[in-house]
Amino acid sequence: MLLHKFSGTLAVLAITGGLLSQPLKAENILSEEIRATALELKETALDAGLAYELDESLSTEVGARRVGTPGDKKGVEWAVAKMKALGFDKVWTEEVTHVLWERGEIEAEVTGPYPHTMTAIALGGSVGSPKKGIEAEVVEFENFAALEAAAPGSLDGKIAYVSYRMERKVDGSGYGPAVIARGKGALVAEQKGAVAFIMRSVGTDNNRLAHTGSMNTDDGIPGIAAAALSNPDADILSNLIRRGKPVTFKLKQSSRRHDKKVVKTANVIGEVTGRESPEDYVILGSHLDSWDVGTGAVDDGIGVTITMAAGKHILDLPQRPKRSVRVVLFGAEEVGLVGVEQYLEAHKDELDHHVIGAEWDFGVGRIYDMKPGVGPEALNVIREMAELFAPMGVSLNPANDAKGQSDLSLLGDAGMPAVNFSPDGSLYFDYHHTDNDTFDKVDPEAMKFNTAIYTMFTWIAAESGVDFRK
Amino acid sequence: MLLHKFSGTLAVLAITGGLLSQPLKAENILSEEIRATALELKETALDAGLAYELDESLSTEVGARRVGTPGDKKGVEWAVAKMKALGFDKVWTEEVTHVLWERGEIEAEVTGPYPHTMTAIALGGSVGSPKKGIEAEVVEFENFAALEAAAPGSLDGKIAYVSYRMERKVDGSGYGPAVIARGKGALVAEQKGAVAFIMRSVGTDNNRLAHTGSMNTDDGIPGIAAAALSNPDADILSNLIRRGKPVTFKLKQSSRRHDKKVVKTANVIGEVTGRESPEDYVILGSHLDSWDVGTGAVDDGIGVTITMAAGKHILDLPQRPKRSVRVVLFGAEEVGLVGVEQYLEAHKDELDHHVIGAEWDFGVGRIYDMKPGVGPEALNVIREMAELFAPMGVSLNPANDAKGQSDLSLLGDAGMPAVNFSPDGSLYFDYHHTDNDTFDKVDPEAMKFNTAIYTMFTWIAAESGVDFRK
Repeated sequence: MLLHKFSGTLAVLAITGGLLSQPLKAENILSEEIRATALELKETALDAGLAYELDESLSTEVGARRVGTPGDKKGVEWAVAKMKALGFDKVWTEEVTHVLWERGEIEAEVTGPYPHTMTAIALGGSVGSPKKGIEAEVVEFENFAALEAAAPGSLDGKIAYVSYRMERKVDGSGYGPAVIARGKGALVAEQKGAVAFIMRSVGTDNNRLAHTGSMNTDDGIPGIAAAALSNPDADILSNLIRRGKPVTFKLKQSSRRHDKKVVKTANVIGEVTGRESPEDYVILGSHLDSWDVGTGAVDDGIGVTITMAAGKHILDLPQRPKRSVRVVLFGAEEVGLVGVEQYLEAHKDELDHHVIGAEWDFGVGRIYDMKPGVGPEALNVIREMAELFAPMGVSLNPANDAKGQSDLSLLGDAGMPAVNFSPDGSLYFDYHHTDNDTFDKVDPEAMKFNTAIYTMFTWIAAESGVDFRK
Repeated sequence: MLLHKFSGTLAVLAITGGLLSQPLKAENILSEEIRATALELKETALDAGLAYELDESLSTEVGARRVGTPGDKKGVEWAVAKMKALGFDKVWTEEVTHVLWERGEIEAEVTGPYPHTMTAIALGGSVGSPKKGIEAEVVEFENFAALEAAAPGSLDGKIAYVSYRMERKVDGSGYGPAVIARGKGALVAEQKGAVAFIMRSVGTDNNRLAHTGSMNTDDGIPGIAAAALSNPDADILSNLIRRGKPVTFKLKQSSRRHDKKVVKTANVIGEVTGRESPEDYVILGSHLDSWDVGTGAVDDGIGVTITMAAGKHILDLPQRPKRSVRVVLFGAEEVGLVGVEQYLEAHKDELDHHVIGAEWDFGVGRIYDMKPGVGPEALNVIREMAELFAPMGVSLNPANDAKGQSDLSLLGDAGMPAVNFSPDGSLYFDYHHTDNDTFDKVDPEAMKFNTAIYTMFTWIAAESGVDFRK
């Protein structure tokens, strides 16, 4: 998951105009057959553990998949081969292009008054430091707003340091206030004269592993080296600064942007072809690329494999559902929702046929909340769906303003109805964009649970024929 | 804490001959004054938070302190200056010598069939690989015993890999069965023909940070490169091997032993000089050196600063206790209990005057158990001491076989009575010997609690005049 659009998924509930204001119908709209099959699919998914197995394969046989790396290419090959092996009716790729960024090497240290080697990681998109590194006094800001408020020129020759500490929240709402510094910090610091930008990691852990992630860039500005410190290192740095003597820091970073060099990747799409209206699609979204640290087992290996498993369980039914299901593994999400942008362009003429979508890009926990973003006519079906999920502890969010998460937020902006399933995100930002994004963090029981919900949702959306449009 | 002697602290309780078999006395032996002062010292320590403050200073202003590094020298200077500033009656150093070991650099990777970059760390004392690195097939053993059972020559040209998973236990008893591979694995693998030795980290976490620590070495054997993988990396490697195809691994490691190059460090000793029998010492032990990863805030910054704080609280009393208190910060513990060996040699003529000792070298938790190793005459005083700790939730261990922990185990072997205080060690091996050994892991409330117990113990042992000898 990257920074853009995430705030949409964390929006304050808009009660007005939401579910509670819609009339209830006395009779069920969904047929007994649809309900019965949904409950069978639930049991199938809970028994199978397929997503967990697929994620073990992806993270072990492929691993890290940053766009432009061999791992990303292997990820595309893996997904195509695996979808074919699972028996999807159609499997294809759609090329996605992006510009090359190289992480290079990084060395970070406090040089005085008390030297410490620091664990740091370049922010995605950052330029490097001068070759020999850059050494300067550190100026600390408690958050991005404080950095923004600094007087122009006040950071001339200094290294700007934002020490904001992300809060742990079930719904991930600590991310927004923290990630703004990752997005804009370097650009603002550069405007004020800083020679480099460092920040406390956007993460809730206390491990000496720094969190990477995309930063905003501006072609018209040369850029300064930008890096995140691990949270324990940020503690050390802040404790040193608190002593009141000037603290000097050296950053040597060889990351590099190549704005003219194009790298290729792909969106990988697997289709379950509908038996009645195959030109209408239920979209299951996730992203196949990952950062180059960790093995991408969590972000977004979980989403890739939950949605693939949901498709496979539908494929195993005696007959295809009425509508098609498209499992779309987007490329180049981490670097700016690039794959979905290109999908949107390629499929602009059939957007009306994207009847509803759900994305998974929020980690390891179990779903506890379901929020629709559909037209009023569809709300009774959503309620009936929610009744099936209720025994699993999933609440129906009374707001009806979901617009799709991560990649699917762009399809949501373009008008596609969506259902957002929210898992417990308490642990997600412990691992997010770090070396710790590995398969041991994936909870097999949560994978079964979440796959069951995605499979039931997909089945009902594809078989019921309901018009979800707003 | 290193591997040697630790098993002694985890011995099965020897009930026979222990506390329960000793006669109880009806009247208290400790005077009301001693008890009252002990309770005052408890409040002082609980209010002060001095150990936490000292550990922040040590870990922030010094940081990592591996013997032979500038950090170790700075640690000695810090300790001398700080003990003087705290007002210890005497502060001195005693030179400790050891041989130089250089960690160098390490690169580890699975090269086939599915490549992965691995997080690994050299074991302390290991030689390096050939300059270009060594690439070979990996042979997995589920534990050290399985490696030992391998036929001679069966590992010719292979890399031996022990994948034993350490268990999390409150008393740290998962350490012994795991650490044997770190101690002896490389030597045994080399005997069987292996060209390198790798192992799952001796640690209970699932962070992508590998755990270092000493290995046994043998001057008569050339040695092979030996390294620990982080636990998530060990999972990946084992998952690859389970697929049944040969897995190749490349290790490039420039660590180096210099058996002839001597490095100097010191035991740092601060004394509270007794008012009646200053030649008798209550010993508070810990070690000042640390590994070069992390800042040594936990191992053994906590021990260093708890014992310094206990000494300071005794110093602040209106008068000195009858006996002296020696706060001994041993050097070169991690590399083989070297500092305490040299202390033992230097002080062999006054060992009888080491009336009792307690070490702290087991991390972040709160004390829940106290186990004596004293003569029968002293058991009633131990019981009275334990009554003072009982409201704090500390049990008196019915065995009476404590021999001192870590460094003090050698003084215990030489006959010094001891009390072992055992803290909850559930989290200790998450951080142990990794980059994660940083100040954010230190719990300020546990520091107060444990300092209170050490201070009360020290006071009673130094003031009561009891003969603890066996």
